[in-house]
Amino acid sequence: MTEQIRVTVWNEYRHEKSNAEIAALYPEGIHGAIGEGLRAHGFEHVQYATQDQPEHGLSEEVLAQTDVLLWWGHMAHGEVADEVVERVAARVLDGMGLIVLHSAHYSKIFKRLMGTSCDLKWRELGERERVWVVNPAHPIAEGLPDSFVIPQHEMYGEPFGIPEPDSLVFVSWFQGGEVFRGGCCYYRGRGKVFYFSPGHETYPVYYQSEIRQIIANGVKWAAPTEGPRIFVANRKEPLEPITTS
Amino acid sequence: MTEQIRVTVWNEYRHEKSNAEIAALYPEGIHGAIGEGLRAHGFEHVQYATQDQPEHGLSEEVLAQTDVLLWWGHMAHGEVADEVVERVAARVLDGMGLIVLHSAHYSKIFKRLMGTSCDLKWRELGERERVWVVNPAHPIAEGLPDSFVIPQHEMYGEPFGIPEPDSLVFVSWFQGGEVFRGGCCYYRGRGKVFYFSPGHETYPVYYQSEIRQIIANGVKWAAPTEGPRIFVANRKEPLEPITTS
Amino acid sequence: MTEQIRVTVWNEYRHEKSNAEIAALYPEGIHGAIGEGLRAHGFEHVQYATQDQPEHGLSEEVLAQTDVLLWWGHMAHGEVADEVVERVAARVLDGMGLIVLHSAHYSKIFKRLMGTSCDLKWRELGERERVWVVNPAHPIAEGLPDSFVIPQHEMYGEPFGIPEPDSLVFVSWFQGGEVFRGGCCYYRGRGKVFYFSPGHETYPVYYQSEIRQIIANGVKWAAPTEGPRIFVANRKEPLEPITTS
Amino acid sequence: MTEQIRVTVWNEYRHEKSNAEIAALYPEGIHGAIGEGLRAHGFEHVQYATQDQPEHGLSEEVLAQTDVLLWWGHMAHGEVADEVVERVAARVLDGMGLIVLHSAHYSKIFKRLMGTSCDLKWRELGERERVWVVNPAHPIAEGLPDSFVIPQHEMYGEPFGIPEPDSLVFVSWFQGGEVFRGGCCYYRGRGKVFYFSPGHETYPVYYQSEIRQIIANGVKWAAPTEGPRIFVANRKEPLEPITTS
Repeated sequence: MTEQIRVTVWNEYRHEKSNAEIAALYPEGIHGAIGEGLRAHGFEHVQYATQDQPEHGLSEEVLAQTDVLLWWGHMAHGEVADEVVERVAARVLDGMGLIVLHSAHYSKIFKRLMGTSCDLKWRELGERERVWVVNPAHPIAEGLPDSFVIPQHEMYGEPFGIPEPDSLVFVSWFQGGEVFRGGCCYYRGRGKVFYFSPGHETYPVYYQSEIRQIIANGVKWAAPTEGPRIFVANRKEPLEPITTS
Repeated sequence: MTEQIRVTVWNEYRHEKSNAEIAALYPEGIHGAIGEGLRAHGFEHVQYATQDQPEHGLSEEVLAQTDVLLWWGHMAHGEVADEVVERVAARVLDGMGLIVLHSAHYSKIFKRLMGTSCDLKWRELGERERVWVVNPAHPIAEGLPDSFVIPQHEMYGEPFGIPEPDSLVFVSWFQGGEVFRGGCCYYRGRGKVFYFSPGHETYPVYYQSEIRQIIANGVKWAAPTEGPRIFVANRKEPLEPITTS
Repeated sequence: MTEQIRVTVWNEYRHEKSNAEIAALYPEGIHGAIGEGLRAHGFEHVQYATQDQPEHGLSEEVLAQTDVLLWWGHMAHGEVADEVVERVAARVLDGMGLIVLHSAHYSKIFKRLMGTSCDLKWRELGERERVWVVNPAHPIAEGLPDSFVIPQHEMYGEPFGIPEPDSLVFVSWFQGGEVFRGGCCYYRGRGKVFYFSPGHETYPVYYQSEIRQIIANGVKWAAPTEGPRIFVANRKEPLEPITTS
Repeated sequence: MTEQIRVTVWNEYRHEKSNAEIAALYPEGIHGAIGEGLRAHGFEHVQYATQDQPEHGLSEEVLAQTDVLLWWGHMAHGEVADEVVERVAARVLDGMGLIVLHSAHYSKIFKRLMGTSCDLKWRELGERERVWVVNPAHPIAEGLPDSFVIPQHEMYGEPFGIPEPDSLVFVSWFQGGEVFRGGCCYYRGRGKVFYFSPGHETYPVYYQSEIRQIIANGVKWAAPTEGPRIFVANRKEPLEPITTS
C-alpha cells in the first residue's frame, strides 16, 4: 500500500536559492531531502512542486493525482495565490491528506483549514529539542522510542493558536524552557491533516532518522480513505414516512 | 454573573421584513424572540445588531463591549462584508463567545472559524425533530431532560462538514430518517463557539422553553474567561540557560 | 497487511445453544458469521474463542498471538472471570486492538476500559435502524455510503454512559424516535478500542455487507502499531543537567 | 455561586504524621493548605476527610453533600477500600466533580475512572517545573499567564498512561528534559474530572498563588450541572410509531 500512495512534496524553495549555508545543507532543496526520506521508507510515487512554478506547481491535474501533499513554507507565505490555497483546501476537504511542516504553521493553507491564528512563540538560538510521544497508540508513533533529541533547532513555544487536536501525538521540550504541541492530527471534511513542527531550514532535521520515520508514518495515516463525500443537498424525499401526529 | 454578561444578538433580519407569515411569527424579529428568552433567563445586558445597519451593526465599539455574540443568518450570507467577518473572527479568537444558530452553519463567520465546508443535507417538510442529550455532564445540558421534541422543523442531516466537536452535546433525530450533530462546542483561540441547529424562520422554535434554556446555557458557557492571550513573538531571551552539551 | 493480522473472535456462545431460532440464524455461532465476514474481506488468520472454554478461551498464549480481539457477549457477562478480564485489559493497554460488539457495551472488559457505567436505553421491537456516517475521513468509514439500513434491530438509545469518543464515526437513527452513538473509537494506553453497536442475536445483522465492511475496517484500524511502551519508572538520571538557579 | 459549592478535600494524611519535614511544611496537613487556598478564593463550604477516618471519611452522607471532591494520596493507595472507591465513582458518574492531585494519578479512584494504567515516569531531584497553558480558552486557565514556575518539584514525565483528555489545559516542562500533560479535563458520565499534577509533599506547592488559582478554577469547572441522569431502562413504548415498511 505504501508503494501506491502518490505523494507530492511542496516546498517554497527560496531559502535554498538565496542562502549559501542552507543551499549547502539542502543541495536538492528541503523537498529533495524529504522526498529521499520517503523513498527510503518505501514510497515509490514521490514528486515535487515548488512555489515559483506556474500555479505554484499545484494545478488541478497535479492535485487530482496527489494522495498526500506535504507543505513547507516560511518566508513567502503571502505570495501564495489565494486561488491555489482554495484549490488545495477543496482537495483536502474531499479526501487528500495534508502534512504541514514547521514554519508552514503560518501558511495560508494551514490557517485556512484551522480557522485560528496559528500564532506561536519562537527563538533562533539553535537549542536542544526533545520530542516526546504522548499517544503511543497512534499509528504516527510507530517505531519510535519514548523521546528523541533534535540536537539543534529553532524553539517553537506555547500557547500555540490552533484548535485542540483530534489526536495529540507529540509534545516537544526545549532547552530554553518552553513546550510545544508539535505533532497534531486533525480530521477536516473527508481529509486528514497532520501538523509536525520540526524542520527549520538551518538544521539538518530532515536527514534525521526519527523525523523521516514520523513523516513516513504521517503520510500513511493521512492517505485518503473512501468514506462518503460531504455535500449540500435538498433531500426532498424523506427516507421514512412523515406523518402528522 | 449571568446579569453581567453583555450579549449581542445579531440577526440578518430579512425574512421578517419580506414574508408576512414570518413577520407574524416573529413580530420583533428573530433577534427579539431570542433576546426576550435571554432576559427571561436573567440576562440584563442584551442588545441587538442587524445586517442592514452600518457595518452590519458590528463596529469595533460594539464588539469590544460584547461578551457573547449570537448569530442568525440565512438568505444573505454573501452580503456580509469580509471586513466585518474578520473583525468578528479576531474578537472570537481573542475571547468573545459566539453562538451560531441554525442556517448560520453556512455563514461566513462559521465557515471562517471552522475551516471546513459546513455542508449538510436539508428538507423543508415541517417534520418532527427530537433533540437528544449525549453529554449530560456538559453545562449546556443543564436543566434538560433526556430529549425533547420540536413539533415541526426543517430537517438538517449528516454528514455535516464540520470539524469533530471538542464536545458534542446534542444529536437530533428527524422523522424522515436522518440524524444531526446539532449541538457542538469548540474552543477557538481564546474564545468559545457553540453551534446549535434549531431555529428555522418558519416555526416558533425560539419561543420554546427548552430552546431558550439551551441558548441561555450556551451563552453562560461561551462567556469569556481570562486566560493568557495568544500572539506571535520572538522570545529572544530564553527562560532557562542554553548550554551546548 | 490485512492477511497478516491475527484476529480472535470471542463469543459468549450461549444464545445459539439454548434458542432454536437463534441457532437457525447463526448455525456456526455469531462468531462463525463474523469470522466468515472477515475471511471474505481478506483476513487469513481468524480464530475463535468462546466463554465456556477453559479460561474462556483466552489464555496468555492465545492473547499473545492475537492482534485484534472481537468481543460479543450478552446474557452471561457476570460469569466472565475477573482474572481474564484483567488479562485482556492488560493486553489492550499494551497494544492489542479490541472490537466491542452490541450488547458487549455491558461486558466487564468494556466497562473496565471505559471507567463509566456504559448504561443505555433499549427496546426489542425489531424496528428499523439507519446507521449514519458522521466522520467520513475516518478509516472505519471506508467504502460506505452516507447511511445504510438495518431492516430490523433492537433499539439502543442515548444518553449512553461512555466517555466522549476520541472519534465518533457512526450515529444510529431508530424508527421509534431515538439516536445512538453506535460507532466509537478510543485510544487506551498503547491499544485501540472500537465499539460498534449493531448485532442483536435475533437478527441476521452479521451477514449484512455494510456491517461486515465496518467490522473489517475496524479490525484494520485497531491492529497494533509499535509505539513506545507505557510503564512506570524512576528516571533517576536526568536527560538534561539540573542546576540550581 | 462559588460561595455555594460544597467542597470536600480528601487527604491520605500519612506523610504529615510520619515525616517531620513534611509536617513542618504542612502543619495543617496538605488538605489544610488546599482548603485555606479555596477559602481565600471565596469558597465558604470547605470540609476535610482523611484516609484513617471511618469509611475514609467518605460515607454516603458526606458524598451526598459534596459537590466537588479533591483527592490527594500517595503512599497508601492500596489501603483504600474498594467499596469506598466504588461509592466515589458512582457519585462522580452521577454528577459530583473530582479533582485528582499529583500522586493520586495512581489512586484507585483515578485508575477506576480512566480505565488505563495511569503509569508515568518520575524523579525526585527537586528540579524546576514550568507549567504552560495550552488551552487559553478553557475556564481552568482563568487569570493565568502563559506559564509560571514551580521552583522545585518532583518530575512527572511522558508517556503518561491516560486516555486522551477531553481538554488538555496544561503541559509541564521539567529541567531534566521531560514534558508532562499535567492539566487534563474529562467528562465521565454526568460528572467532571480534572487531573492536576503539581503537589509533591516535600515542596510548598499548595501555598503558591498560581496553584491555588488553578485549583479554585478547577473546582468551579467541575461543580455539578443538572443534565439528565444516565441509567439503563427498557423503553418498551416507542416515542414514535413503529410500522413495518
